[in-house]
Amino acid sequence: MAEALSCGAQVTDLFVTVPARSRHSDLVTAAEGAGIPVHVVSGEVMGDLAQTVTPQGLLAVCGFVDVPIAAVTQSAPTLVALLANVRDPGNAGTVLRTADAAGARAVVFADASVDPYNGKCVRASAGSLFHLPLVAGVRLGEAVAVMRGAGLRILAADGRAGRSLDDPGVQARLGEPTAWMFGNEAWGLPPDLVALADEPVAVPIYGRAESLNLAAAAAVCLYASARAQRVHGVTGRDGA
Amino acid sequence: MAEALSCGAQVTDLFVTVPARSRHSDLVTAAEGAGIPVHVVSGEVMGDLAQTVTPQGLLAVCGFVDVPIAAVTQSAPTLVALLANVRDPGNAGTVLRTADAAGARAVVFADASVDPYNGKCVRASAGSLFHLPLVAGVRLGEAVAVMRGAGLRILAADGRAGRSLDDPGVQARLGEPTAWMFGNEAWGLPPDLVALADEPVAVPIYGRAESLNLAAAAAVCLYASARAQRVHGVTGRDGA
Repeated sequence: MAEALSCGAQVTDLFVTVPARSRHSDLVTAAEGAGIPVHVVSGEVMGDLAQTVTPQGLLAVCGFVDVPIAAVTQSAPTLVALLANVRDPGNAGTVLRTADAAGARAVVFADASVDPYNGKCVRASAGSLFHLPLVAGVRLGEAVAVMRGAGLRILAADGRAGRSLDDPGVQARLGEPTAWMFGNEAWGLPPDLVALADEPVAVPIYGRAESLNLAAAAAVCLYASARAQRVHGVTGRDGA
Repeated sequence: MAEALSCGAQVTDLFVTVPARSRHSDLVTAAEGAGIPVHVVSGEVMGDLAQTVTPQGLLAVCGFVDVPIAAVTQSAPTLVALLANVRDPGNAGTVLRTADAAGARAVVFADASVDPYNGKCVRASAGSLFHLPLVAGVRLGEAVAVMRGAGLRILAADGRAGRSLDDPGVQARLGEPTAWMFGNEAWGLPPDLVALADEPVAVPIYGRAESLNLAAAAAVCLYASARAQRVHGVTGRDGA
């Protein structure tokens, strides 16, 4: 709620329970000051509205925040996350939060990925939904073409890839502007989607696990790029 | 199930539905060959046994796999994860899976952390429960003392820490044998637990997120150590 108000999202209504109204009087006052209608409701109504077992007692109705993909490339992004058929809302929201933390400039929900406005996704994003440009309902092929056109290198996170993040060649190019492609939590990225990328890269498995959870893999990949871009500076493609 | 059988866990019974018996005939044959009683049950009974909405149709009853903390240090571990009051079973299981992937030699469920045998934790671990030594029901203070006695440096993952993973001093020592301490998903590590560590270290936040999800932070920390230990070799404490 505070995120939505402070990040300029279009808040159209605020629902609040009596206890939450006194607990968050600063937020309620801010909303009223901004001309947002404030509705006091019972805990029972709040439970239904929030669709969660332990609602916070405060619920803001916001306009959609997603943007067209063309808007993303206008700011010359250096790090982007592309979700391809990520179905689990908790995973998708966690990747959104992690991408925000890693300083990514956009997250794209492509192909059959979950609705970013799914309540569980919004909660898992912990406010990051309002922090960075979000693109929804786009084809992965189109997203890849737009990102490539903007000078980003497309890396596919693929546990079956021959080269890992530790590969010196991969390491040497991690500082380049990069869009990371992440696949479905159960089956990953099928070959036809991997083929859209410039290079498939595996997170190395040093132990006996068969694979990493999607959100954990995304954290390792996005932070590897973020760190390389910060420590060595963002380098141009092909070291230019 | 395959993990449990192949990793030497004590499987005492195998429950299987008729469709799963033909689908996984190799596993059922292996179980029978090992003298494990195989019980055919209805889908309804399986649903109750597995406590999940879409059970796999195959359920093994195993003995507990946790070990005393003294057993962990006998193998001179170089990377260990210490969970301090991690309550969410999905998070704990994901950290277990990530620690396994990162090549950690043990995961310790300390203080009021969730029961590692919680069904959701077991499922989130994706078999990793059987891959590396697991310690449960130990005090964090005791776990820290034992790890420190075994020559491990204790790092506390703490978003409020003054130094981050990018700090050159932190980077220089990441190759040392390390036990990473991770706190509760909602409130992190309180000061009295951080004080048990040799050093608190933050995962850097490059964007606008307030913090990272626990499992994502653990992935970044564990992989940072694993990579440093592999690329530069495990170094002794204080560079010795």
